[in-house]
Amino acid sequence: MTTTEQRPTDYKVVGTRPIRHDGIDKVTGAAKYGADIQLAGMLHGKVLRSPYAHARIRSIDTSKAEALPGVMGVVTAKDFPIIQDQIIDLAETQGNVRLMAEHVMANEKALYQGHAVAAVVATSPHIAEQGLALLDVDYEVLEPVLSLEDAMRPDAPIIHETLSTHFKQERFARGEDTGARGNIASHIQHKLGDVEKGFREADVVLEREYHTGTVHQGYIEPHASTATWTGDGRLTVWTCTQGAFAIRSSTAAMCGVPEDMVRVIPTEIGGGFGAKITTYLEPLAAILSKKTGRPVKMVMSRKDVFEGTGPTSATTLRTKIGATNDGKITAIETWMAFEAGAFPGSPVGGGTLCATGPYNIENLLVDGYDVVVNKQKVQAYRAPGQPQGAFAIEPIIDELAETLGMDPMELRLKNVAKEGDRMPNGVAHPRFGVREMEEAMKAHSHYSDPLGEPSNPSALRGRGSAVGYRWQAGQMSAATIIVNNNGTINLVTGSVDIGGTRTAVAMQAAEVLGIAAEDVIPTVVDTDTIGYTAVTGGSRTAFDTGLAAIQAAEDVKRQMGARAAAIWEVQEDDVTFEDGVFSCLRNPEDRFTFKELAARMMRTGGAITTSVSAVSTGVGPIIAGNIFDVEVDQDTGKVDIVRCTAFMDVGTAVHPSYVEGQMQGGTVQGIGWALNEEYNYNDQGVMLNSSFLDYRMPTSLDVPMIETVMVEVPNPRHPFGLRGVGEAPLIPPLPAIANAVSNAIGVRINKLPITPADVLEAIASKGE
Amino acid sequence: MTTTEQRPTDYKVVGTRPIRHDGIDKVTGAAKYGADIQLAGMLHGKVLRSPYAHARIRSIDTSKAEALPGVMGVVTAKDFPIIQDQIIDLAETQGNVRLMAEHVMANEKALYQGHAVAAVVATSPHIAEQGLALLDVDYEVLEPVLSLEDAMRPDAPIIHETLSTHFKQERFARGEDTGARGNIASHIQHKLGDVEKGFREADVVLEREYHTGTVHQGYIEPHASTATWTGDGRLTVWTCTQGAFAIRSSTAAMCGVPEDMVRVIPTEIGGGFGAKITTYLEPLAAILSKKTGRPVKMVMSRKDVFEGTGPTSATTLRTKIGATNDGKITAIETWMAFEAGAFPGSPVGGGTLCATGPYNIENLLVDGYDVVVNKQKVQAYRAPGQPQGAFAIEPIIDELAETLGMDPMELRLKNVAKEGDRMPNGVAHPRFGVREMEEAMKAHSHYSDPLGEPSNPSALRGRGSAVGYRWQAGQMSAATIIVNNNGTINLVTGSVDIGGTRTAVAMQAAEVLGIAAEDVIPTVVDTDTIGYTAVTGGSRTAFDTGLAAIQAAEDVKRQMGARAAAIWEVQEDDVTFEDGVFSCLRNPEDRFTFKELAARMMRTGGAITTSVSAVSTGVGPIIAGNIFDVEVDQDTGKVDIVRCTAFMDVGTAVHPSYVEGQMQGGTVQGIGWALNEEYNYNDQGVMLNSSFLDYRMPTSLDVPMIETVMVEVPNPRHPFGLRGVGEAPLIPPLPAIANAVSNAIGVRINKLPITPADVLEAIASKGE
Repeated sequence: MTTTEQRPTDYKVVGTRPIRHDGIDKVTGAAKYGADIQLAGMLHGKVLRSPYAHARIRSIDTSKAEALPGVMGVVTAKDFPIIQDQIIDLAETQGNVRLMAEHVMANEKALYQGHAVAAVVATSPHIAEQGLALLDVDYEVLEPVLSLEDAMRPDAPIIHETLSTHFKQERFARGEDTGARGNIASHIQHKLGDVEKGFREADVVLEREYHTGTVHQGYIEPHASTATWTGDGRLTVWTCTQGAFAIRSSTAAMCGVPEDMVRVIPTEIGGGFGAKITTYLEPLAAILSKKTGRPVKMVMSRKDVFEGTGPTSATTLRTKIGATNDGKITAIETWMAFEAGAFPGSPVGGGTLCATGPYNIENLLVDGYDVVVNKQKVQAYRAPGQPQGAFAIEPIIDELAETLGMDPMELRLKNVAKEGDRMPNGVAHPRFGVREMEEAMKAHSHYSDPLGEPSNPSALRGRGSAVGYRWQAGQMSAATIIVNNNGTINLVTGSVDIGGTRTAVAMQAAEVLGIAAEDVIPTVVDTDTIGYTAVTGGSRTAFDTGLAAIQAAEDVKRQMGARAAAIWEVQEDDVTFEDGVFSCLRNPEDRFTFKELAARMMRTGGAITTSVSAVSTGVGPIIAGNIFDVEVDQDTGKVDIVRCTAFMDVGTAVHPSYVEGQMQGGTVQGIGWALNEEYNYNDQGVMLNSSFLDYRMPTSLDVPMIETVMVEVPNPRHPFGLRGVGEAPLIPPLPAIANAVSNAIGVRINKLPITPADVLEAIASKGE
Repeated sequence: MTTTEQRPTDYKVVGTRPIRHDGIDKVTGAAKYGADIQLAGMLHGKVLRSPYAHARIRSIDTSKAEALPGVMGVVTAKDFPIIQDQIIDLAETQGNVRLMAEHVMANEKALYQGHAVAAVVATSPHIAEQGLALLDVDYEVLEPVLSLEDAMRPDAPIIHETLSTHFKQERFARGEDTGARGNIASHIQHKLGDVEKGFREADVVLEREYHTGTVHQGYIEPHASTATWTGDGRLTVWTCTQGAFAIRSSTAAMCGVPEDMVRVIPTEIGGGFGAKITTYLEPLAAILSKKTGRPVKMVMSRKDVFEGTGPTSATTLRTKIGATNDGKITAIETWMAFEAGAFPGSPVGGGTLCATGPYNIENLLVDGYDVVVNKQKVQAYRAPGQPQGAFAIEPIIDELAETLGMDPMELRLKNVAKEGDRMPNGVAHPRFGVREMEEAMKAHSHYSDPLGEPSNPSALRGRGSAVGYRWQAGQMSAATIIVNNNGTINLVTGSVDIGGTRTAVAMQAAEVLGIAAEDVIPTVVDTDTIGYTAVTGGSRTAFDTGLAAIQAAEDVKRQMGARAAAIWEVQEDDVTFEDGVFSCLRNPEDRFTFKELAARMMRTGGAITTSVSAVSTGVGPIIAGNIFDVEVDQDTGKVDIVRCTAFMDVGTAVHPSYVEGQMQGGTVQGIGWALNEEYNYNDQGVMLNSSFLDYRMPTSLDVPMIETVMVEVPNPRHPFGLRGVGEAPLIPPLPAIANAVSNAIGVRINKLPITPADVLEAIASKGE
């Protein structure tokens, strides 16, 4: 593994690779995850899920289940205050809470196979499962709507009869009526310039349609939540979530209590990738706990996870591109339809905003549609919507280069987005390293090395590359710092640590204070004891919570400086801090390290602590790229990845090992999406592969060592130049692999995953 | 129950009686106490205690215990790094850590019956107890030193041979050699004026000797601690303590790790009264956990509590007082010897400083001695040393009044301490309400009502009164406030809530912010997540942590005002805050309540949070008083309390119900101390009554309804005028009851407890 580090500044901590603070706890098993919560008198809940993708619930007879010894209670939608209209003021809650609740528990209709219709709580998980079997649900099975094409037909069955006004409101809020009806939840349109004019100026015009399948985030840890009420009406929830405050908000709304009556304690989390932001079990556990007066724990099985939680959208994408013969792109018109699953809210916005991000496109028309179908409600998945969006653009760029006889990276660089160029929404790009990264890709030996001989005579090799763009807005984080007498600090945040943010944030505070990363003791606390902190997600945490930690550290530095001034009997302005040392302008021999000064803290005015809430301006643009070499077996259609290099403008790598890990992890997920992973449904919308045996994620045997190249173009929006590195690496693998396969077999495959059958069919089509 | 409230200011929250925040959790059993901690794989530890009051430990054979199936480990002093000299730098720890460790686990000698000599950890508490029985300790029994008189004899056996230098250092630090040797750990002396001259000016001189017995704090919850280490060498301890930071400090020192490697999570606490500041089980559980690699819980039995934890000192007190015929006290000379138990550190300092506090004594000589004896090491008990100190002064004041033919309260008022008068240590008294309280006592109907008829012909009734003084210095507290969108706040502190401080502190923050007490959600957190906070004790918490909460609330108010200014587009100076409303000087119609402004918080710059560490200047003087009516049965010697009124200058009663509760609770403990409670030892120093059956604490059947009179002389050191109310009510009951019994039977009894045998003997002596 090689890394390219161009350190812009002589940092002491940022850019080093200390042992992660949570490492030992996690490898020794001491870390507590969602399912590790044990409370006295605790009951166990299990969820009954709809076997039908679309069905009216005529009635649910719970009597037999309730009569089973050990069963303590049953919950259905009738127990949800929000569904039963016991709450009227939803103004303070975000989104449509009733819709969220009907997602957590089906009300009049079950809208996907796996949709929760009831839950049973019992003295053991096994009895709860027995109870589920005794629930008698009377379904009227309805025709399911299972594809974008079907859903968007004017005569399609309507999934949400009662929610048409909701959809209308969304459209009306945009000030336009798109004419879309039925299952189209919303429409997004971006326009720049004049595409008709652009295509008229083009020497070459290509037009293609692409498809991507439904893929799951595939986190290791199934969802697990435990809830208990105290007599004063306060609810405590332990849960594995990416955002304790988000869960507080949604759980409170669904339970009909104010947010401040709910305390959410986040456990360690075994992966989230965006899918542990939404609420599934928390309100169920809470309502069951309220009914029984006892703590209730609920843990999903893997089947629950696949069938009952949200994958990301399958999509249909259509792109038309025009360019002059010398490679100037004159226009792009792209149309994207994203499956939302059973409730509105696909990441189509991420796709429409970002797909063309690496390029300066003067004439652009982007249309995006959020379409409900009778499948699992999609959730965020690492760079939500952007891998699909990139799959609408990057293969056609590759094909355009081929058509023009240009090197594809040369074509990208010719049209590269520069500072000040407009994004699809009209906002100007700030400085970011897209050009630098593309130049690094082009200059890398992987771009020009010979492909090497195939491992067997019937195999073909090919190389493909692509880039992927993400825009990251800012959210809110809080940080508290407490200085210990021995010069270590306790750093308290509300940011659940998924991908190493605990250490990455701690390192930023350490950098400010001139102490070692190991001298920071980071703790993630609950919603009662830290300022509001948005979710860990969107590649924001090292950046946003880092900013909060930096602000808090700066305040600590100021307070410490004041102590030094008092000791030296000088003004605060006479104290400087450099290279971890406070010194006195009036007497240069007066010096304290942070640790020396901390040791004097209690005798110079007492303990030092501070807490800040910081609003972030946001990371801004992020760019990643991949080069893939594949080997395609012409007999079996199997595609092997034989070489892979991942690139990213990482801004400044706070902890390079973590950044490399993010780049490698994202790339592996992209390999799965491109080649192996897909929800398989029967014609009634029943998922056929809801286990890790049948839903094929890549293992270590499926991927080569992934080389990482970190390009560091410091982000002007952050004191240390950070960008967000968690998501963008998942974007380029999809098109890069498709480009590589096309390069190998000489035929374009415009769908994902590229299955062996697709490959064989494509090879067979060559002769046609 | 009547209360006198003279509200000095029109507070909205301070002075009201909201439902306590922790009430429902506590009455429903949801609150988690020390013994409620359950961890996966947890083991249970039990302590072997010395059967001898003084014995050399020749050897401990642990092999049989270790061989018992289920026993996982044994700890002795050999396992303590600090005892075994594995640590050399103790500079950062407070006190003599090795001595503290030898108190937790006997090293070469067992110094009291009940002194821990080993601990066994096993898979169940029962197996651990079986393991204790298999430990083979070879003791060389030594002569115990059991009384002050014996201990102070020049030829007394020396308890701490190796610690003579420690004692010397203490004396040398005071710059004087008192000539005391052997078991006298330290000597305190205060001098004002010229006592010889004072006695020469006196018309009347009395000289008396008093004794008080050994009494325990009698908290409901026995000590319980659980410890676990993680692989990176960090220790987490859950314990019922009055001060998580104090336990962190002592446990870290005894385990030989830096403080910041220890996280102490305080549980709810079932009473402390000063005795849950010191460490007993935490280092044992920690060392056993380290040995076994598993969490270890240790819970004391009641017998453990009596024999193995610290009561307060038995004392011998000698006082000489002189006065003129018109009641002017011309001199007091008082000598106090306090039993420290087996290790230095009695509360003699509290007795010597405060005994004469209610009076202006120009000529004063106070001598105090801290004396080690082979008994349980004493610990703080509510107003440490002051009840004993008051027992050296208040009975002789009463007797002096009798001798002079004066009303005793008249005598007190004639000599009352005023602002500017010197305390024994020479410091001038600030303003406090001793005069106002004594006038309230004198004016109260209880002071002049007829005594009423005895309930049987052979009974006698009497009335007595006394006052008690305490000085309270300031310590450090931190507070964090987080503003919720609905205008409630989370208030995070490190102050364990013993007597209602959670609510009393929350109310002060609410008062500042113009919100209801119920709109504050108070949480007590652990040492990793809040700034350094000294123990809950010394009547300091509502005051000191209140100051921190007020400072934090003021900062929140400032931040909120800035938001209002931004909304109104005016300067921050143009925003005022009054009666819970932010308003604009430039446009009086622009108004926001705190809640209205909080609802706009996220749209005007995001969440608001703050954290402060506050150094307190301290409460200063506190004064309490009691009037008791007793009925003495001449046949049995039994004393019944038939009427009792408790008085205190409470400064400002934040939550009057709590203040009344403190006054009543302290008074009841005083009744126990005066009449019932006492450690009974045999002649070898073995405690004979180590259960609540035999150690007789008052029950509700033993006490009448206690009327409370809160005199409010606002404390100039606190924005709302608070004093500390937790301790002083325990001071006056001891002398007041003794005075009442004397008044009933016509003979002075100068010892506590006043047992039926003492009463019968005193009555019999009348004829002599």
